[in-house]
Amino acid sequence: MQTQGQVRSANLAAALACLRDGGPRSRARLATDTGLTKATVSSLVTELVERGLVAEGAVHRPGSVGRPGTLVGLAGGVCGIGVEVNVDYLAVLALDLAGQVRWESRTALDVPGLRPVEVLARASALVSEARANQAAAAVGVTVAVPGGVQGSVVRTAPNLPGWVGTDVAAGLAGLGLPVTVGNDADLSALAEVSAGPHAGVPDLVYLTGEVGVGGGVVTGGQLLRGSTGLGGEVGHLALTPGDAPCGCGRRGCWETVVGLGALLRAAADPDDPLRDPGRDLEDRLGEVVARARAGDARTLEALAGIGTGLGVGAAVLVALFDPAVVVLGGYFAVVGEFLLDPLRAALAARVEDADRVALSTLGFTAAVRGGAHVALQPVFDNPTIVPLEASA
Amino acid sequence: MQTQGQVRSANLAAALACLRDGGPRSRARLATDTGLTKATVSSLVTELVERGLVAEGAVHRPGSVGRPGTLVGLAGGVCGIGVEVNVDYLAVLALDLAGQVRWESRTALDVPGLRPVEVLARASALVSEARANQAAAAVGVTVAVPGGVQGSVVRTAPNLPGWVGTDVAAGLAGLGLPVTVGNDADLSALAEVSAGPHAGVPDLVYLTGEVGVGGGVVTGGQLLRGSTGLGGEVGHLALTPGDAPCGCGRRGCWETVVGLGALLRAAADPDDPLRDPGRDLEDRLGEVVARARAGDARTLEALAGIGTGLGVGAAVLVALFDPAVVVLGGYFAVVGEFLLDPLRAALAARVEDADRVALSTLGFTAAVRGGAHVALQPVFDNPTIVPLEASA
Repeated sequence: MQTQGQVRSANLAAALACLRDGGPRSRARLATDTGLTKATVSSLVTELVERGLVAEGAVHRPGSVGRPGTLVGLAGGVCGIGVEVNVDYLAVLALDLAGQVRWESRTALDVPGLRPVEVLARASALVSEARANQAAAAVGVTVAVPGGVQGSVVRTAPNLPGWVGTDVAAGLAGLGLPVTVGNDADLSALAEVSAGPHAGVPDLVYLTGEVGVGGGVVTGGQLLRGSTGLGGEVGHLALTPGDAPCGCGRRGCWETVVGLGALLRAAADPDDPLRDPGRDLEDRLGEVVARARAGDARTLEALAGIGTGLGVGAAVLVALFDPAVVVLGGYFAVVGEFLLDPLRAALAARVEDADRVALSTLGFTAAVRGGAHVALQPVFDNPTIVPLEASA
Repeated sequence: MQTQGQVRSANLAAALACLRDGGPRSRARLATDTGLTKATVSSLVTELVERGLVAEGAVHRPGSVGRPGTLVGLAGGVCGIGVEVNVDYLAVLALDLAGQVRWESRTALDVPGLRPVEVLARASALVSEARANQAAAAVGVTVAVPGGVQGSVVRTAPNLPGWVGTDVAAGLAGLGLPVTVGNDADLSALAEVSAGPHAGVPDLVYLTGEVGVGGGVVTGGQLLRGSTGLGGEVGHLALTPGDAPCGCGRRGCWETVVGLGALLRAAADPDDPLRDPGRDLEDRLGEVVARARAGDARTLEALAGIGTGLGVGAAVLVALFDPAVVVLGGYFAVVGEFLLDPLRAALAARVEDADRVALSTLGFTAAVRGGAHVALQPVFDNPTIVPLEASA
């Protein structure tokens, strides 16, 4: 048996989910769509407005007669905050319930050179900055890490070995917010199916190229987690022939073939500024693109090698997961115009329908966006966790 | 709004699911577990008995005092029929709703040497034999094929290329029963999670060794189908280093390394009776096991090679799907005692927790059992599809 309070909370959640999935609509339409009475819906909308979760606005519909309709839609009163700890940067993004980015920052940082507690202190400061500089009240933080997690503890992190065993939530406890932790590519995959061109796609593989190579898999509409939460890991599989040593201690891992290091080594000599890890990654990638556009043979050949390696490995993933689309993120998306042709050629030699590859439009924000979506989820599960004064 | 008939049908389904998932129980307990009144449950049970779907029996509980309790449980009034078309055999199994095998047969058949229409005529005759020789009324047929299907049409079948484009359901239309079609390894994976030691396991990979090698993946409690229904295919991936030509036209596919042909070629010369495709497969595998147990070096070496190849490839699957268990079926299970050590060694060198490998206890019946489960599913979805006279 549900108590009255539980019924009310479930009805608030149903109304909110309806507005999220189908967009703004009139109160009358919301009643029809939720199967609730108009009186109940009116009362629910009033409460959701008071909690800062929905807003009402007059909308003039071109061509319609009579007074303008009043539509109810999600509001920006609260936000979720995504944090990404990667090998060479820290990123933070605040996304409000209405889907607007309220704040974002990305800072180059030599993460392996610092202790996790120091990195998390910086992350905490960035989150505080994000909260101070926009009005939406933060409801939670989700941290993306380049590795596997169980609960809030890092279990595997081939490119950040010093982080294994770190309880990331504990390091951010000073924020006084709920903190969850996830794999960067998993969160990026969730971002891709949450909004944008692939919103709602039930079967999608997301590949992110950074120092490491990560994979996130959505299958049958669910994130593939596996029995220990470590599913979908692709970077340290021998998906392509190769024998180069990997940071993880093994040889021939896929990221030794298609990771950022492989591109930079193939494209530039050791003393080339491209290889300077102190320079901002986007600057360096911009230079790779500039050289490729100028027709530099070595750069083009290096990029073609990455594309082919991606295609050979992606063929395995396409055969196993049969996704509607493989989305390339991270550095793959930045240099994507030079990867797609060799990638599709390698894929077409191995699987049917090699067209199912797309470049992410989220840039390096995919993981923090996905994190922010996850941080907002508890509000959709139970809107009453947001206090009534949130809109004040 | 649900009509009264829909509510009744949903309540019948809820009662049936409850008995399937938790086993026999008293009417009073069934009322508690379904949240329905005792009067409603009594009426539901009466109807389910009339449809042949449940039975009531007095049960003496040792140590209990008073009159014996009467328990309600699933009955054997109806059955689902699984059919498997494989490269060298046809199999049929009738499984009743109570989980009892009512009929089974397996017939060696040179399937590639016949036209699909001829093979389906034989399958149809075997299904008729299964129906004639036991009393449970058949509610449907599900056919397992060694390939990918869309709807009831075979889309890919590397080891039965003549079947591509075949509408299997159309070929069995003469039975007058609903016919569905699935991939053999997918259906086997469903059989593994439906009953037996892995019942209810949410993340499981099933590998079947036959002439081909098939994979079925259950992740997050769902069968992984993918966007076109062709997910989970493993046999034609280059999961292990190798360059041998494959029946599919490519080179180095996993089944050229671990398929039945690879074992027999490594274990025996071409004129050895083991290599005679006309002999029954189980007889030949029995001889492989006998030779291995007798310590024959060539046989042991061949089996170790298969085990290692399985471990190298399974490492990729374990990393991607993170299953609680990888179940080995088909010929892998028959010779499994000689595969497990080298398999686990290869796996342990590549992934954490190499213990998650088990041999199927279903023998060559996994696919037909899974098919029978799928054929029974519509009864669980809506028990009223079974006529009231079914128990007569």
